Amino acid sequence: MPIIVQKYGGTSVGTVERIQAVADRVVRAREAGNDVVVVVSAMGDTTDELLAMANRIASVPDPRELDMLLTAGERIAMSLLGIAINARGCKAASYTGSQAGIITDTQHGAAKITEIRPKRVIEALRDGNVVVLAGFQGLSEQYEITTLGRGGSDLTAVAMAGAIGAEVCEIYTDVSGVFTADPRLVAGARKVQVISYDDMLELAAAGAKILQARSVEYARRHGVKLHVRSTFEDSPGTWVQEMSEEQMEGVLISGTALDVEEAKVTLDRVPDRPGVAATVFRALADEGINVDMIVQNVSHDGATDLSFTAPRADIARLDSLLDRVTKEIGAPRYSIDDGIAKVSLVGAGMKSHPGVAADMFDCLAAEKINIEMISTSPIRISCVIRRADGERALRTVHATFGLDTPADA
Amino acid sequence: MPIIVQKYGGTSVGTVERIQAVADRVVRAREAGNDVVVVVSAMGDTTDELLAMANRIASVPDPRELDMLLTAGERIAMSLLGIAINARGCKAASYTGSQAGIITDTQHGAAKITEIRPKRVIEALRDGNVVVLAGFQGLSEQYEITTLGRGGSDLTAVAMAGAIGAEVCEIYTDVSGVFTADPRLVAGARKVQVISYDDMLELAAAGAKILQARSVEYARRHGVKLHVRSTFEDSPGTWVQEMSEEQMEGVLISGTALDVEEAKVTLDRVPDRPGVAATVFRALADEGINVDMIVQNVSHDGATDLSFTAPRADIARLDSLLDRVTKEIGAPRYSIDDGIAKVSLVGAGMKSHPGVAADMFDCLAAEKINIEMISTSPIRISCVIRRADGERALRTVHATFGLDTPADA
Repeated sequence: MPIIVQKYGGTSVGTVERIQAVADRVVRAREAGNDVVVVVSAMGDTTDELLAMANRIASVPDPRELDMLLTAGERIAMSLLGIAINARGCKAASYTGSQAGIITDTQHGAAKITEIRPKRVIEALRDGNVVVLAGFQGLSEQYEITTLGRGGSDLTAVAMAGAIGAEVCEIYTDVSGVFTADPRLVAGARKVQVISYDDMLELAAAGAKILQARSVEYARRHGVKLHVRSTFEDSPGTWVQEMSEEQMEGVLISGTALDVEEAKVTLDRVPDRPGVAATVFRALADEGINVDMIVQNVSHDGATDLSFTAPRADIARLDSLLDRVTKEIGAPRYSIDDGIAKVSLVGAGMKSHPGVAADMFDCLAAEKINIEMISTSPIRISCVIRRADGERALRTVHATFGLDTPADA
Repeated sequence: MPIIVQKYGGTSVGTVERIQAVADRVVRAREAGNDVVVVVSAMGDTTDELLAMANRIASVPDPRELDMLLTAGERIAMSLLGIAINARGCKAASYTGSQAGIITDTQHGAAKITEIRPKRVIEALRDGNVVVLAGFQGLSEQYEITTLGRGGSDLTAVAMAGAIGAEVCEIYTDVSGVFTADPRLVAGARKVQVISYDDMLELAAAGAKILQARSVEYARRHGVKLHVRSTFEDSPGTWVQEMSEEQMEGVLISGTALDVEEAKVTLDRVPDRPGVAATVFRALADEGINVDMIVQNVSHDGATDLSFTAPRADIARLDSLLDRVTKEIGAPRYSIDDGIAKVSLVGAGMKSHPGVAADMFDCLAAEKINIEMISTSPIRISCVIRRADGERALRTVHATFGLDTPADA
C-alpha cells in the first residue's frame, strides 16, 4: 500500500472544529487506499502560550525543561486528532517524537535529527493504524526530550517520509501552494505548479515562509517529494521535487520573496588580516545566530568595512556579543541597522541568462530604490534596501520578470 | 542524604505564582540537606479542560489516545516547576512517568502500577538534581502511555517513595491535614496529629477526599510514612503511619466522613440460588464499576432483595448493564436511588467497644434520621441515609463521639 505523510500546521489544528476537519481529510486519504502518517504541530498559539508561562517564571528558562514543556503542545494536538480519527471508525494511534524514533543531537531548542528509527511507526501501519505523529520533537542520544526549533514539524514530516519510503509528503497550510510572491503583497502573484528543490530552498532562505529551508534541504537529500497545499480546499497545490532539464525549460524565474525580519550589522574599519572574519563569525555561530548575507568591501589603508545580515530577533544578543568581539579584533565601532528589507529573485533559469541581475537592478533604479547590499548565488539575487521600499520593490521585480501573468494563460 | 518525596496537587500548582511558591518550598527542603523528589499533578483544571475538548470530539474517546492527551497536563506543570527550581540556582530535572520507570498494566484510564524501575530517578538524585516527577501517569508493559485514574498522583508519590526508600512522603494539599470531619461541614472538627494506615484507609473508603484509598493501601504495604499537610502554611499536618498499641490507646474514634457521591441500587426478588450474586458483581467488575456496600436480606419464597452502592458517576453505565444482568438472572426489576448519602465512623478503638454501633444508631434516631442500609467492618460503621439528612447526620455523629472537643485541650 502506498504511504502518504501529511503534515498539518498549528492553524490547521487550531480548534476542535478544525481537528475534526483534518480527521475527515485523513480518513478520506486512508479510504482511498493509502497508509497514512499524519504529523501535527501544536494547536494555534499553544507553543507561544507555554513559552509565555515559562518566561513569567524565568527570563532564561532551563533549556531541557523548556523542551519538556513545549512538547506538551503537540501531544495535545496529536491525541485529540487520534481521538477524532478513531471516532470515525478508522483505527489510529498517536506517537510522540520519542516513541516514533526521531533521534536528535542534544542541542535543546534547536536539535538536529541524527537518525530515524521508524520501527514502531511501521509496525503500527502494518497493524492497520493511521499513525499520528507529534511534529517538532525528538529524543536525544542521551534520552532527553528535545525540540527541533521553529518550523520543526515540517522537518519531522519530511524525515519520517524519507525513512519509511512515503510516496509523497503533503504539507498542509493556510495558503494553497507556493506563489511567485506573497499574494498579500502582490495582487498578481500566481501559484507555482512545480518547483525544484534548489529553487524552493533559495526561496525559503530568501524569506518565503511557506517551507522551512532545513526541511527542503532534507527532502532534496533524501529524494522526498513534497506537495504544499491548502488545508481548507481540495485543489492541488505546489509540488516540490527533482526537475528534469525539460521541465525546467522556459522557466526563467520561480519566484520572488521579501524578507523584513533581518537587520544589517556593519563593523567599521576592521583590520584586514587573516583570521579576523573567522573570529567574528565563529563567535556568532557559537551563539547560534544565523548570519545570512555577508559583504566585505575592498581594503583601504589595511582596514575594511564588514557587513552582514542577521535576524532582528537576535539584536539584543548581537549587541552584547559585538561589544566584546570588536574589542578583540580591534575594530573601532559597529552599527546595527534595524530598518532594512531584503528582496530576492529566485530561479534556476537565470543561470543561463546573464542579464537577469542587471534587469533587477535597473527596475529598482527606475523606482528610485537604493540598493545597499547585494548577494548572489547561481540561482538567486538578493538586494538589501530600506524597509519602507520593500513592498514597492517586490512588486516592481515581480512585474519586471513577467510573473504577474499566469504562465498557462 | 535522607530522601523526601513531596507531592503537590493541582490547586497547589494552579498558577504560575503558586508554582513559584512551591519552588521556594522545594528549595528550602533541599537546602535543609535532603534529596528531594517532587511529584506534581496538572495545573488547576487542566485535566478537566483537556477532557472537555476530547468529549467535544467524541462522546467516548479512544482510551489510549485519551491517556496520551491527559498526560500533557502533568508535563506542563512539571516542566514549569523544573524551570522555577533551576531559576533559583538549584539543579532540577523533570521526568515523565514513563521516564521515571512507573510501569503499569494496560488498563487505560485506570492503570495499576505493577513495578517501579527508579534507575533514572536515582541517578538524577546522585547527580545533585531535585527530581520533578509527573504524577498520575505511567508506561504499560506494552510501552503505551497510561494514566492511573483520579487521584493517581498520590499513588505515584507513595510508590516512588517506597521504591527509593524515602524517609517520608509529604502530601501537600489545600487543607492542613486529616480532620475528624470535613471542617466545611462540621465547625468543631479538629486536625488529627497521627492516624494509623488502617483508620486512614477506612476514612478514605468512606468518602474522605484527602487521600486516595489506593495510595494509603500502597503506603501501608510498603511501610511508607505519609505526612499530609498544607501547601499554604508551614505548620505540621497529619502523619499517617504504623501505630503501636500504646499510641492507639485512648483513641476510640479517628474520624467521620460523609459520602454524597454514591447511589443505591436495589435488585428486587433476586432468585436465591448459588452463583447469582457472583453473576451480578462479576458483570460490574468487568465494567470497572466500584461497588461499595453490599446488603442482602434474608430470603423469602426463594427470592431475596439485593442492594449495593456504587458511584453516581456510573449510573448511566449501570443502567444499561443491569437491564442485561437482571434478565440473565431472572430478577423482575431493579431501581437506582440517586438521593442517598453515607455517613461513617472510623476508629481502630471501636474493636474493643461493642457499644459504638448502638450509640451511632441511637444518635441518628434521636435526630429522626432513618437508616436505610448498614455495613460494618471491625473498625468502621457506615449508614446509608437520605442525602438531605447527610450534614445533620455527620454533625450529630461527630458530637456524640466527643470529637468536637480537641483531644489535647
